[in-house]
Amino acid sequence: MNSLVSSKDLGRHTIELLLQNAQAYADKNQIGENHGTVVNLFFENSTRTDLSFQMAAQRLGMRTLNFDVAHSSTSKGESLLDTLETLEALGVDVVIIRHQIDWPTALAGHKFNLGLINAGSGSFEHPTQALLDALTMRQHFGNLRGLRVTIAGDIRHSRVARSNLHILTELGAHVQFAGPDDFRPADLPEVPWVDFDQAIKETNVLMMLRVQYERHAQSTDVATYHQQYGLTVERLDRLRKDALIMHPGPVNRGVEICTEAMEDPRSQILKQVSNGVEVRMAVLDWCLQGGKHGKLVSA
Amino acid sequence: MNSLVSSKDLGRHTIELLLQNAQAYADKNQIGENHGTVVNLFFENSTRTDLSFQMAAQRLGMRTLNFDVAHSSTSKGESLLDTLETLEALGVDVVIIRHQIDWPTALAGHKFNLGLINAGSGSFEHPTQALLDALTMRQHFGNLRGLRVTIAGDIRHSRVARSNLHILTELGAHVQFAGPDDFRPADLPEVPWVDFDQAIKETNVLMMLRVQYERHAQSTDVATYHQQYGLTVERLDRLRKDALIMHPGPVNRGVEICTEAMEDPRSQILKQVSNGVEVRMAVLDWCLQGGKHGKLVSA
Amino acid sequence: MNSLVSSKDLGRHTIELLLQNAQAYADKNQIGENHGTVVNLFFENSTRTDLSFQMAAQRLGMRTLNFDVAHSSTSKGESLLDTLETLEALGVDVVIIRHQIDWPTALAGHKFNLGLINAGSGSFEHPTQALLDALTMRQHFGNLRGLRVTIAGDIRHSRVARSNLHILTELGAHVQFAGPDDFRPADLPEVPWVDFDQAIKETNVLMMLRVQYERHAQSTDVATYHQQYGLTVERLDRLRKDALIMHPGPVNRGVEICTEAMEDPRSQILKQVSNGVEVRMAVLDWCLQGGKHGKLVSA
Repeated sequence: MNSLVSSKDLGRHTIELLLQNAQAYADKNQIGENHGTVVNLFFENSTRTDLSFQMAAQRLGMRTLNFDVAHSSTSKGESLLDTLETLEALGVDVVIIRHQIDWPTALAGHKFNLGLINAGSGSFEHPTQALLDALTMRQHFGNLRGLRVTIAGDIRHSRVARSNLHILTELGAHVQFAGPDDFRPADLPEVPWVDFDQAIKETNVLMMLRVQYERHAQSTDVATYHQQYGLTVERLDRLRKDALIMHPGPVNRGVEICTEAMEDPRSQILKQVSNGVEVRMAVLDWCLQGGKHGKLVSA
Repeated sequence: MNSLVSSKDLGRHTIELLLQNAQAYADKNQIGENHGTVVNLFFENSTRTDLSFQMAAQRLGMRTLNFDVAHSSTSKGESLLDTLETLEALGVDVVIIRHQIDWPTALAGHKFNLGLINAGSGSFEHPTQALLDALTMRQHFGNLRGLRVTIAGDIRHSRVARSNLHILTELGAHVQFAGPDDFRPADLPEVPWVDFDQAIKETNVLMMLRVQYERHAQSTDVATYHQQYGLTVERLDRLRKDALIMHPGPVNRGVEICTEAMEDPRSQILKQVSNGVEVRMAVLDWCLQGGKHGKLVSA
Repeated sequence: MNSLVSSKDLGRHTIELLLQNAQAYADKNQIGENHGTVVNLFFENSTRTDLSFQMAAQRLGMRTLNFDVAHSSTSKGESLLDTLETLEALGVDVVIIRHQIDWPTALAGHKFNLGLINAGSGSFEHPTQALLDALTMRQHFGNLRGLRVTIAGDIRHSRVARSNLHILTELGAHVQFAGPDDFRPADLPEVPWVDFDQAIKETNVLMMLRVQYERHAQSTDVATYHQQYGLTVERLDRLRKDALIMHPGPVNRGVEICTEAMEDPRSQILKQVSNGVEVRMAVLDWCLQGGKHGKLVSA
């Protein structure tokens, strides 16, 4: 099995291969016959990612097992390691993990006869989101070389920003960040931190991030945030006519983005959702193609 | 896609078509090959409706995705509208919605490339329940023209009563209500409100409703309710020998209905459950036949 | 339908038949085409048993319905009996039940056109666990005749111990128990209660049970328990070189068993998990072969 644990495990060649295969699935609307078995092991809330992987697996003809984390033995204190060894022994082929912790670091050095796919790890990684974002940009612009991509909002807590930074840079795009100073990430000093209103006028892609209330202790003043760092109707007007508006969802309408922007022809938000299914088909397929040899998890 | 949102969207011709197709599925015990994808979006507890739709979808060869509302992004405040647009973008074909609110009114005027099926909306509608009730009566009596149907119990809070009123009337039956005066619905003054003990002696069909403790603030005195408005052993004895006993389930034994009535040969309660699967197969099939054109939701 | 409710319903001939069929599934890694429908009705937490039955059903080509007990009508007070009659009417073929109560006694005398499989009933029975344990021993030793099997730990609350006692004895093994005196079962005076450290040196199979914190009121001193009744590194050293180490999982590392024992070549813990899938395939297949005649549940 191949695993997709960190976006940094992917070089340009593998990224291109995955995007090409995803596009082929998008073109053919194909149902396959892989017959592997997939388990979604989600320790955090999700709608689109969970359903997107289920849909991808079913379109590939894979079996999906329903794992209810809240009522599972993990609530009896079983470790993630023991759970994965159990799933491996049950004959599961691929486990898709979303967790509030940096689970790849927790598992570093262990070897499984399983493909592992990272569907979100703390504020660290969400590589399939970055791949679907790249696919969306590539469908529109042909390729990403020289493209200016502004990611705006709560960068500090965003795994989406971190995975996109790697994947998009690998494909030749120039990534820059904007947002409240409190949200500037200390671990990424090399990425340009730009003025939001200046970036609006020049960027080819504007990716708005969700304000993640559930990760913040202090309550945010919604109206103030929207005026200062949201995609308002006024900013929508100043955005380049050929720019793309993106958002990983779920959206807080009227907080980081106004309803007008969601319905704007430049918005790719629903296209991102549908591209997510095909990207995950390509990733699942690639994991299965790796064969039944375990690989060490590298954090 | 066709949608089944309100029983009032169905005229006699469509009702007959759906019942005929349901009967054909009941006769053939058929497994189909439709390959559409169904999601159950249930914001309220259910056993039989949820499983019945899952069973219907699987017997049609449709894929079912497991949507756990309690752990989904809807708990992050995502609106029903955004959730449906996401499901549409994921490539889902039919969404089956049960909600404590009048969701069709909330969505009125929106257009989806999805079939929507109402599996319960507040105290307003539950059209597939009414269709399966009609199928059960038709199997027994041939047709419903002139049939007297008494629905007894908590009419005021009952979506089952409201959907049955439309569907059964459309098919030519005479619907009347009975129960405690507190449960008389202010919005349906045209429906005869009859004496329960008088109705028992004359009705062709007696449909007992569940006492919905969870919708009532005040605690109901169970024994008193049973004596005054329940189907007791004494009333069972006075019921016409050729009448049908029906109940949408789940049953509160000893409250609205005694155990003897459930086991009486006139009871159709389990037959209703099995007819529910075939009715939902017919409805799912009909939704898919509508093709990939969105329709406006009319409340 | 056949049902597997109590291990005591199984005589030696049926046990042998199930183990042979399970071994055949293990050899062939087969996907079947049974097309029956299975529901997991789990009132207690589980990872491996739930997933194991889902995997077994899917490998047999059976449909699985997702029954969320926590959000079901059983939470409206519907009885287990009514739920099973509903599942029967829905056309379900096999229901797999795990419950904290002795549900077979609660259902005694009722007849269903359903296969029922006991996936755990209070501290009474867990027959498929015992069958997979027997399969694991048979794969290693050829047959169980004369084998000494020591089950150690919280015997009093263990359904695994009770089901294994019957199945293993039926196959000719000698079962003995060890553990804290508080955990000695009053209902099984005929089973030898042996000194743990003496048993370690002589037993062919050492089956360690989970300390079930959730069933105990008083807090157990973990370190003391491990030293007195756990499989420590010292005891691992004194264990026969040709003995098997077994555990039904999930494991409390460092409580009833040390990490070294789990990774010891004598450990069968993950082999038990994979054998569980094939045993459950054999049991599901056997239930379906019983045909559509209901059987009385005997407690």
